[in-house]
Amino acid sequence: MNYQTIDEANQAVISKIVAGSPFLLDVVPANTVIKEFNQGKVLLHAGPPITYDKMVDPIQGACIGAVLFEGWAENETDARMLLESGEVTLMPCHHVNAVGPMGGITSGNMAVLVVENRTDGNVAYCTMNEGIGAVLRFGAYSDEVVTRLHWMRNVLCPVLSKALKTKESGLNINVMIAKSIAMGDEFHQRNIAASLVFLKEMAPSIVALEIDKKEKEEVIKFLADTDQFFLNIMMAAAKAVMDGARMIQEGTVVTAMCRNGYEFGIRIAGMGDEWFTGPVNTPQGLYFSGFTEEDAAPDMGDSAITETFGVGGMAMIAAPAVTRFVGSGGFQDALNTSNEMKEICIDQNPNFTVPTWDFQGICLGIDAAKVVETGITPVINTGIANKNAGLGQIGAGTVHPPIDCFEKAILAYAKKLGFNG
Amino acid sequence: MNYQTIDEANQAVISKIVAGSPFLLDVVPANTVIKEFNQGKVLLHAGPPITYDKMVDPIQGACIGAVLFEGWAENETDARMLLESGEVTLMPCHHVNAVGPMGGITSGNMAVLVVENRTDGNVAYCTMNEGIGAVLRFGAYSDEVVTRLHWMRNVLCPVLSKALKTKESGLNINVMIAKSIAMGDEFHQRNIAASLVFLKEMAPSIVALEIDKKEKEEVIKFLADTDQFFLNIMMAAAKAVMDGARMIQEGTVVTAMCRNGYEFGIRIAGMGDEWFTGPVNTPQGLYFSGFTEEDAAPDMGDSAITETFGVGGMAMIAAPAVTRFVGSGGFQDALNTSNEMKEICIDQNPNFTVPTWDFQGICLGIDAAKVVETGITPVINTGIANKNAGLGQIGAGTVHPPIDCFEKAILAYAKKLGFNG
Repeated sequence: MNYQTIDEANQAVISKIVAGSPFLLDVVPANTVIKEFNQGKVLLHAGPPITYDKMVDPIQGACIGAVLFEGWAENETDARMLLESGEVTLMPCHHVNAVGPMGGITSGNMAVLVVENRTDGNVAYCTMNEGIGAVLRFGAYSDEVVTRLHWMRNVLCPVLSKALKTKESGLNINVMIAKSIAMGDEFHQRNIAASLVFLKEMAPSIVALEIDKKEKEEVIKFLADTDQFFLNIMMAAAKAVMDGARMIQEGTVVTAMCRNGYEFGIRIAGMGDEWFTGPVNTPQGLYFSGFTEEDAAPDMGDSAITETFGVGGMAMIAAPAVTRFVGSGGFQDALNTSNEMKEICIDQNPNFTVPTWDFQGICLGIDAAKVVETGITPVINTGIANKNAGLGQIGAGTVHPPIDCFEKAILAYAKKLGFNG
Repeated sequence: MNYQTIDEANQAVISKIVAGSPFLLDVVPANTVIKEFNQGKVLLHAGPPITYDKMVDPIQGACIGAVLFEGWAENETDARMLLESGEVTLMPCHHVNAVGPMGGITSGNMAVLVVENRTDGNVAYCTMNEGIGAVLRFGAYSDEVVTRLHWMRNVLCPVLSKALKTKESGLNINVMIAKSIAMGDEFHQRNIAASLVFLKEMAPSIVALEIDKKEKEEVIKFLADTDQFFLNIMMAAAKAVMDGARMIQEGTVVTAMCRNGYEFGIRIAGMGDEWFTGPVNTPQGLYFSGFTEEDAAPDMGDSAITETFGVGGMAMIAAPAVTRFVGSGGFQDALNTSNEMKEICIDQNPNFTVPTWDFQGICLGIDAAKVVETGITPVINTGIANKNAGLGQIGAGTVHPPIDCFEKAILAYAKKLGFNG
């Protein structure tokens, strides 16, 4: 151990979280920055490793959409055959410095956000938010979905890239988070303020570009209409910061939480890249008209990196407006949730103070040991996908990881340290 | 009386406030819609009627700026002489369906927002927010200030006008308020979310206009940078709604509150256009670096129309982030403030629920009778001007009206109703 005690190691890890300085630098096709895409047919997915046959229907649907988008097959039947043949390599986003929302399915020609953590020099990637309705991340793969992905690759991506390059050093994401947390965002279910702040930062640069007027109009309209656009920026930022922090490979701080619809996986600092998994739960929440819990797919997505960082459900009190959307009560319930989450965290992050929490900082450093001791698991705000592919989002709610992940991680770390109790 | 009781009249007035539907229709030069500007040299000012010699220094400074902007004088000395000569007619904004922030000085060629209250068919006007720093409303009148006013008249005004005309029926201000109150705005000191929502609504239309690219860039950049832009929209909307409500000329609901740096004036429904005044207080608050209470000008501005409507200081709990800016404590203090304000209001407005107040509606209908009974006066969030002209804003804080206004109004109304107790 480089540290005298686990507490000391944990302090070092949370210091790196506080020191993290994520900047949005660029938007580029994924295969220009993630070299694994150049090794045959490769798709990234959310959560810990999984094989195609174990994927739930909406994630298989997203795979079909990606195959069609890449032109690897002409139609759904051929796409399914290709995926079942095993010719497409599947790997977790997390294994290539990326994160992906819901299914997390990412292919080489999809555009990804590039976020650099200036403190540690590492980079993270995430696809851009597609908006609402029929979208790939919730398992839809219609022509509309594929056409939008092409537009995002061919118009949105180069326009944002050009606009970002007019900034001296990219966009300082910490500043956007700090502003928006005072406007009621918790950055998982609610990113409306941060998405507006992003629009405000980008619109003047986009308008000033010497490019086709129609493209400007389309991009400005898309950004103005996409309330969750910032979610994917937040995810990439949280990934970049947590990957910086987990360069310290000691202690019990949770450095990643993610789900693939089958298993929930966590990492803790002291166990490096190893995943500790348990079966996923199904979110509890509110359903759009015409849907019930019967229609819900199990928990999925790398978006729980936001909770790992300390926002999302952990910061429920920052966004009391969310509690009604995810079906978890009123202001007092939001307050109770965040207060409970403090019990499993090491400290609070002074960079992001929450006016609605009397200016307390967001939760900092989920301690897997405290989770096991208290039996309190992190609360995750999440969208709910239809359990059948092609149908998209049907609601929003909250979900918890299985406690097994944390128990396994602590046992493994204890063993690594030589405690064989 | 058309109503059986004062309570019944008050209910009718607050029903009209709730039913109010303000839409932003256009931005135009003031003299195209306010006919009084065509009767010689006319300036509008904030608050109840006042003569030039009684105006505090920053408001006189704003008058000088307006004279220079209109080209009625070549320099400050000549402008002062003109104003002292009595050749310039001064009238309250409120007397011509307008409101003005701080000094409220408005001249015929300044651009004004046009807000229609669709429910009652009446219209209200307000100049646009000039941004921060050296600005006319805080008493600055340098070349920079006058040049900006020309740009607002010649570029910002026609561009916004063209963009607004692409909307079928203007911008629904109630919707923008409802969205932004969930993002921590109280619409007096804090309009950052609403200003972003306005940008989001306008940017796609502006980008699509067939106009000079440089003008688009300038306008988008100005809107993106002006966090308080929505304040003036809110003021015009509140004026339009309150003027609709005061078509009922019965009851004790306060229908306007405003200040001219010398006197605080209020109107109540039952006394129609009559002003009830008392000497203004000086705001208490936090000062920018290098300034103290010694430097503060007394209370000024028609912006207290926001509190009259139920937002601003009345809705402190909606914007806990404001409490630190105006020096009034933390979350609990904001909660205490809004809870106290409920005691002098008749009801709560279900159109604008506040997540941080456990989804209670904003205050509705300040009752002058309750103010007199309880001794609790409305709290007003406000900017603080330097007491000397030309220097601009030096801080922000809260201020209360003198209780005399309310006592005089209630006495006068009692007399009108024949109670000669």
